[in-house]
Amino acid sequence: MSQDYRCFASARRRCYALLFDHRTRSGRRMETFWIVISMLSVLSLFIESSASDLFPNSPKILLQLGLMEVVFTAVFTVEYLLRLISSPRKTRYPLSFFGIVDLCTVLPMYIIWLMPSLTLSANLMVLIRLLRVLRVLRVLKLLRYMSDAGILWRSLMRARRKLGIFFGFVAIILCLFGGLMFAVEGGNDGFSSLGTSVYWAVVTLTTVGYGDITPHTALGRMLASVLILLGYSIIAVPTGILTAYMSQELEKGRAARSCQICLHSRHEIDAKFCAHCGAVLEADTSQPVEK
Amino acid sequence: MSQDYRCFASARRRCYALLFDHRTRSGRRMETFWIVISMLSVLSLFIESSASDLFPNSPKILLQLGLMEVVFTAVFTVEYLLRLISSPRKTRYPLSFFGIVDLCTVLPMYIIWLMPSLTLSANLMVLIRLLRVLRVLRVLKLLRYMSDAGILWRSLMRARRKLGIFFGFVAIILCLFGGLMFAVEGGNDGFSSLGTSVYWAVVTLTTVGYGDITPHTALGRMLASVLILLGYSIIAVPTGILTAYMSQELEKGRAARSCQICLHSRHEIDAKFCAHCGAVLEADTSQPVEK
Amino acid sequence: MSQDYRCFASARRRCYALLFDHRTRSGRRMETFWIVISMLSVLSLFIESSASDLFPNSPKILLQLGLMEVVFTAVFTVEYLLRLISSPRKTRYPLSFFGIVDLCTVLPMYIIWLMPSLTLSANLMVLIRLLRVLRVLRVLKLLRYMSDAGILWRSLMRARRKLGIFFGFVAIILCLFGGLMFAVEGGNDGFSSLGTSVYWAVVTLTTVGYGDITPHTALGRMLASVLILLGYSIIAVPTGILTAYMSQELEKGRAARSCQICLHSRHEIDAKFCAHCGAVLEADTSQPVEK
Amino acid sequence: MSQDYRCFASARRRCYALLFDHRTRSGRRMETFWIVISMLSVLSLFIESSASDLFPNSPKILLQLGLMEVVFTAVFTVEYLLRLISSPRKTRYPLSFFGIVDLCTVLPMYIIWLMPSLTLSANLMVLIRLLRVLRVLRVLKLLRYMSDAGILWRSLMRARRKLGIFFGFVAIILCLFGGLMFAVEGGNDGFSSLGTSVYWAVVTLTTVGYGDITPHTALGRMLASVLILLGYSIIAVPTGILTAYMSQELEKGRAARSCQICLHSRHEIDAKFCAHCGAVLEADTSQPVEK
Repeated sequence: MSQDYRCFASARRRCYALLFDHRTRSGRRMETFWIVISMLSVLSLFIESSASDLFPNSPKILLQLGLMEVVFTAVFTVEYLLRLISSPRKTRYPLSFFGIVDLCTVLPMYIIWLMPSLTLSANLMVLIRLLRVLRVLRVLKLLRYMSDAGILWRSLMRARRKLGIFFGFVAIILCLFGGLMFAVEGGNDGFSSLGTSVYWAVVTLTTVGYGDITPHTALGRMLASVLILLGYSIIAVPTGILTAYMSQELEKGRAARSCQICLHSRHEIDAKFCAHCGAVLEADTSQPVEK
Repeated sequence: MSQDYRCFASARRRCYALLFDHRTRSGRRMETFWIVISMLSVLSLFIESSASDLFPNSPKILLQLGLMEVVFTAVFTVEYLLRLISSPRKTRYPLSFFGIVDLCTVLPMYIIWLMPSLTLSANLMVLIRLLRVLRVLRVLKLLRYMSDAGILWRSLMRARRKLGIFFGFVAIILCLFGGLMFAVEGGNDGFSSLGTSVYWAVVTLTTVGYGDITPHTALGRMLASVLILLGYSIIAVPTGILTAYMSQELEKGRAARSCQICLHSRHEIDAKFCAHCGAVLEADTSQPVEK
Repeated sequence: MSQDYRCFASARRRCYALLFDHRTRSGRRMETFWIVISMLSVLSLFIESSASDLFPNSPKILLQLGLMEVVFTAVFTVEYLLRLISSPRKTRYPLSFFGIVDLCTVLPMYIIWLMPSLTLSANLMVLIRLLRVLRVLRVLKLLRYMSDAGILWRSLMRARRKLGIFFGFVAIILCLFGGLMFAVEGGNDGFSSLGTSVYWAVVTLTTVGYGDITPHTALGRMLASVLILLGYSIIAVPTGILTAYMSQELEKGRAARSCQICLHSRHEIDAKFCAHCGAVLEADTSQPVEK
Repeated sequence: MSQDYRCFASARRRCYALLFDHRTRSGRRMETFWIVISMLSVLSLFIESSASDLFPNSPKILLQLGLMEVVFTAVFTVEYLLRLISSPRKTRYPLSFFGIVDLCTVLPMYIIWLMPSLTLSANLMVLIRLLRVLRVLRVLKLLRYMSDAGILWRSLMRARRKLGIFFGFVAIILCLFGGLMFAVEGGNDGFSSLGTSVYWAVVTLTTVGYGDITPHTALGRMLASVLILLGYSIIAVPTGILTAYMSQELEKGRAARSCQICLHSRHEIDAKFCAHCGAVLEADTSQPVEK
């Protein structure tokens, strides 16, 4: 019994290393495998949704896609159970971001199997379709490999207070102009409620401009022009904030590269030799190192 | 009598501290209270405007929303009177930006009560709806807390001359191209007047592109392409101006942080220790200090 | 006779100083006068073009606007003749940019008066309307006052080679994708000729997106998505070029400010005292000096 | 025979110098000639595609355009054969980018001549039209002259990893929101398949906003607003990345300019004299040198 348990514990450890540890070669291969499977399952969703257009003459294709769906669900279920069992701390994985995503990925099929009556309700079908779409999020695991994502993320994090204030200010402008247009256009031309008017203001300020709701009175058009020119000016603000911080981060990256012989720092990120003593510089640590 | 007056003066001082002084904890709590009330009143406006869609089967909801409106008006009236009484200099508060906003917030209900005949006129109803929407501006008080807004504001202020010239130049381009399109398309396809053509030019130059007015002649389309490519080039100008100033402001912020022991300056904004002597740096004064 | 001529020459000199020299107070007042007149004449054009909408019940307003048009033409004619006479070098003014603009401003009315038969031709009416719109360009004289425009202009000039290459590259992409869409959509959905397809590509790449011409086939939508994402990436290029040059220009402006006492340079543009010796810095010469 | 061969070899060398070597004056003149011919052939394509609109009364123009097409094909065939023969390494030119472009340029006419039956198939006509459009790519040869393109290209190359991660992240967001909208709108209002929904997400996130597919439910509009505001924030990211790298490249350009007398470096790119010793600086080598 103790032998069995030790054997099981060892298997669990190895399973954990395989599924969670990206520092080993086998772990990274396993991760690549899961990401490829996820991408295939997303591709299958795409094909299924437009199957009637793509293959109008072969109703069999829908059956085959349904079969693939079952296979994908089975594979993802196995993955989820393995991860659940091999994770040493019981509550950590199922409550993590990717744990919840993995659970959402397998749920829809089981809901349909176990409670077929639910599929009759339109609202629950929307929920099931939503859960299936979340499968896309599995591909996000890819980003964990990319160390360059760090500089973007740090710039975003350091700029988050300023961006937050900016978007608070934008939200007030949106409500104000949405309200003004609702008051001026008075229910005509699609400005049927405050909510719709704010939706129009979002579409306009960000220069998307669908054109499904447009002002038709002279006063409304003037107000719209003011909002558009305002949007044109403030579109620059997040760009300015992010650019300033990103320049600083890149500058920091340069400052951090220092020669280990003469301690001269501030080398270019892609420099290979020290500009001061000619010694070979170590590889830039912000680039991923291939083992 | 003198006792009464002293008592009243003391109450007024305390009331002033509560309503206008954001440095005390009670003052900040009071401010938070008013902002939450303002947000709720804005939310109530939103629900009211689409009540017939959201609750098609319950006409009672409109009555309840009307009641809430009365309560909000009462609360805002009390706030306005308290602020008016407690402000030491009589004309300062009612003529300030937020004083006018607070007044606009309470007016609509009283106009409807005192002069119900006005509501029959469509134009005055538009005015009343406009006044109600201004309630959104109360939320702007929130920005006063955010010291990070300062850096954005200072960049904007220092760039205002260059931005002004830029928008003057843009205005001339808009009139010119609006006029050219009016001459070329000659009243067809929505280009019915110079004003409408300039509205089209605004929508086009800023890349909003509703599509409610579009050129249909070959010459008009060429002119539109020139205007669009022009807009594509000059969209960069305000971004460039603001980014350059914002970088300078951030740089200034760094330059301003100096160690009090060895007087070494230019520390990173989020540095905690002096890079030169290792002394603990004081907290960044541009961050709000929690007392 | 010599007396007369001397008198005339002196009047011409004074007239020249008044009309062309912006360094004197009277010259600047005169310039302001002409710009205000120009703006009024542009405003009158706007009112005229939508007179039937604004004043549906008063046909007399058109007559009054016609009268104002005559007055404006008379005033501009007097200005043009005065400038022509007072300019010392005969060919310089009439061949300058503003000389041609001033001529275009007065021509339309005389064409209509002298050759009324021309107004029957639709093409010539377009030309006359075009000439009238050029009146907007008179307002550009305003920009000559604004010394801050210099920094924008210098950045644009220094970046013109890079911007030129960029737009050449964009032109090739536009022709290529316009041609591909024309080949793929094959004359349907508005893609009726190569010219129209390139117009669609312009509207799409620059994110204007009118929606008057949109792809409807799956392949066309994929191509459009590629073009859009390409546009999304390269929208950054002119911004990046201009921002980099504008930062350099601002930096140069700082470097140029040096203390006349201790010769310390690189002061902030809005610094009032030398950071090194405390001497009062002279006013920033890039700001316009009020005499 | 040996004489003949030497003569041929010499002719081939001279031909190679003429066609491939842009350092000689005659080589550059020849290149200019081919680019002008390419532009004319593209222009002829444009005229042909809208010939029925431009010249409704002259059916002869189509014949003339067809004749020009034959002439262009003949000229391009001669160029291709000359380049093929004169290139010393046999496989290098036909497998290079411009070799393939040159081949595609001449193919369509020969396909139509040799296999006229193919033109009956709609799909092959699309292919032939595609090949003809590739003629635009010949103009890209122009970019090889422009040394300023280098700075743009190097910035793009150095930023390619970060841009790649960014677009990977954008692709996931597009699939996610496309899927959510497909689930929410459920096949209505144009959201007919996952592919179409992702196309909508591309059009929306990049602020193009055609308006051919728009949400009509309240939940759909909220989701669209979130996607739009997300797009508004992240539109800044590629701008920030490119601007930061482009600033560094320009800075490098400055750093690289050093006086050959006193070795003082970091001169402005357009400086003509050394700021330190007054010696004449050599011309900026990043500008093309006219011989």
